Parts: sequence; structure tokens; C-alpha cells
Amino acid sequence: MTSSPPTSEIAAPAPRPGGRTARIRAQVLEAVHAELTEHGYDALTVDTVAARAGVHRTTVYRRWRDVGGLLTDIFAAAADIDWHPRDTGCLHGDLAALNQEIQDSLTEEPSIAAALIAVSFRSDEAARALRQLWENRYAQSEIVVERAVRRGELTPDVDARAVLIAATAPVYHQLALLRTPPDPLLPERAAAAATMAARAGAFTGPSPETFPAGPP
Amino acid sequence: MTSSPPTSEIAAPAPRPGGRTARIRAQVLEAVHAELTEHGYDALTVDTVAARAGVHRTTVYRRWRDVGGLLTDIFAAAADIDWHPRDTGCLHGDLAALNQEIQDSLTEEPSIAAALIAVSFRSDEAARALRQLWENRYAQSEIVVERAVRRGELTPDVDARAVLIAATAPVYHQLALLRTPPDPLLPERAAAAATMAARAGAFTGPSPETFPAGPP
Repeated sequence: MTSSPPTSEIAAPAPRPGGRTARIRAQVLEAVHAELTEHGYDALTVDTVAARAGVHRTTVYRRWRDVGGLLTDIFAAAADIDWHPRDTGCLHGDLAALNQEIQDSLTEEPSIAAALIAVSFRSDEAARALRQLWENRYAQSEIVVERAVRRGELTPDVDARAVLIAATAPVYHQLALLRTPPDPLLPERAAAAATMAARAGAFTGPSPETFPAGPP
Repeated sequence: MTSSPPTSEIAAPAPRPGGRTARIRAQVLEAVHAELTEHGYDALTVDTVAARAGVHRTTVYRRWRDVGGLLTDIFAAAADIDWHPRDTGCLHGDLAALNQEIQDSLTEEPSIAAALIAVSFRSDEAARALRQLWENRYAQSEIVVERAVRRGELTPDVDARAVLIAATAPVYHQLALLRTPPDPLLPERAAAAATMAARAGAFTGPSPETFPAGPP
């Protein structure tokens, strides 16, 4: 099983049955990654990808049509990966592990995750594909909250997605938007804060501070 | 006093002493905003900006040199605005007001804040300028946490920046990165979650779940 944060593991897809076709896909997508992280979206063309992959350009044009088709397939390959969040035995640990994977994927050199986020501001096709990939990853991560409910850490009416967004947003915000230097304590701290807020009832029903649960 | 979230109020700078020079700057920066939100970074040139502003192109070239100079001045104008976070009387209310301003700035049509975030993925100059603007806005927002400490809502050893990041990150993450439809409840919910986590000690010293505060 491959471990991966919402946007990482967008490396070449695992070999699959199909022989030559699968091999060509792996070579081409690896070339897209390399071109993107080294030269950026502006320099990305079907021809440079074909040359780097060592694949005939007409093969690439026939199968992927254009840069949009290549990018869409990059995200599709990432979505195909059999990813599951780690099970550390407690909500705080699971969220910290998830955040650490996200931080690693955004700070590795080169970071394909960071490159794909940048591309999503250039191409509507890439933006749609990234939105879908994130949707899948967050849906797959909801098991973390479900496990916490089963363990009795949280009540069943908790909004799992809200817990996951609260935990992971600070890592994305600092690294992808604010562009602050990575803080090695942040994955764990953001996970701890989200866990405490969840236990205090922040993600259960209407916001408890505005709408007290008791009778008026 | 102008109310503004970290990236909004990047509208034309307030008129200032200087007469014609100030007027030309206002016209040119307004033209940059309009071009950016309508046609995006790719279409932005000194010539289109000059034409839209009704200012002679040599004036624009002389004062701003190039597109990078125009973008830098957009952020400088935003930084000049006399912005202060609202004082609602409690931490939760202050953070909710801050989040509402951020959400409004990212969802208004056209959104100059969203356009500038997109530009920061294209231009290193813009990325630096946006980082600086955010740094200023978060520094100006720390008063919100300081007031909470003075009111006794939080202890003085709280990490003000961490509270602000936890409160605001979900709004940025959902609107600027995940690109989910705006959730009208999110500004308040994210503020409530950060407030609860802060009260539970999540942003005080080393993470309390990993390093219990009491004796071992």
C-alpha cells in the first residue's frame, strides 16, 4: 500500500497489466512531472514531453491530444493510486500523520504537488482535475474521523470533512499560499488544534457558540 | 477607517496629497485591477493598462517600468491602506469578522484578491509582494489575540500568529485552493473552532497532547 497525502503520489503510475501501453504511459507521465517541476507550465509542450520520454511525438498526440490531456492524465494517475490514511490508534496521531504527508509532499524537491497547485491557477482543466483529486483524498480520509467516533473520541454527529479541513488547512495555507518556510512542528500542532476543537464540539451541528445546544 | 481582510482593499489607493501624480497612480492601478480580473495575467501589458487608464504609455513606462513594477505597486497601495481588524468584544466575534472579510474579498465579483493570489503563482515579484502584504495583515491582526489576553480569554503565552492562521486558513483553503463553493457558515465556524482550540491550550507552548504540561 502506498502512503500519500491529498496531492502527493502523483509520481508515475504503478506498472499495470498492459505491457507496452502501460510502459509508455509511465514514461510520458514521468516526463510531464520532470518538465513541470524543472521548467514550469509555460515551457510544457507535447513535443518536449515526447522527446524527454523517448516516445514518438505522434504517439503522444494520438493518446493525449494536448497539454490539457497530459495534465488530466497526471491527476487521473494520482487518483488511481491505492492510498489510505495511516491508522495510528488516535485521532490526533492520524491527523498529524496526514499533515506530515502533506507537508512532505509540498516541501520535497522538486515538489510535484506544489507544481500541480501552480498549474491549477493556469489551466481550468487542471483546476477541475485537482479539485476532483482533493475531493477523493478528503473522502478517503474521512475514515480517520469515523475511527475516532468508533473509539468514542468524538460523537457520531461530528462533521468529518470539517475536522479534516481544519486540521490540514494551516499546512496548505502556510506552504502553498503564505509561502512561509516549513515549520517542522506545524503538522503536529495543527492536528492537535483540530483534535481539541473537535472534542470541544466545534464541528458538531450548528456552531455551539452562536446557537447554544440547550434550551433558550 | 477602512475595513479590510488580509488581501482585499487592494482597490485604488485613497486619494492623497499630490494632485495630478496621485490621480494618475489611482487611474493606472485601477486599470491594472480591471485588466487582471477581466483578462488575467497573460493579457496584462503596460500598453493595455495605459490605454485603459487614459494615461500616456511613456508615463506608465517611466514610472512603473514593466508589469512587475505595476504589480508591486498594487500590493504597495494595499499595504498603505489604514486597515485594522474589527473589535467586536470577544475573540470568537473578532475572528469571525476577520474571516467574513476574507471570504467576501475572495468571493466578490470580480475578486482582486483571488486575481492577486493567481498572479503570485506566475510572478516571483508578485509572490514576494503578496507574502509581504500577508505578513503585514497578520501582524496587524495580532491585536485581536492581544485583546483576548487582556480580557482574560486566553493566557499571555498564547502564540497569536498560530491562532490567526488556524482561524483563517480554512477560508483560504476552501476558496483559493480547494475551490469549493462558498459556505456562508464557514467564516463563523472556523472562527469558533480556532477559539475553542485556543481556549483548550492548543496554541500555547509545545503541543500539550505530545508534551503534557504537568509533571511526568
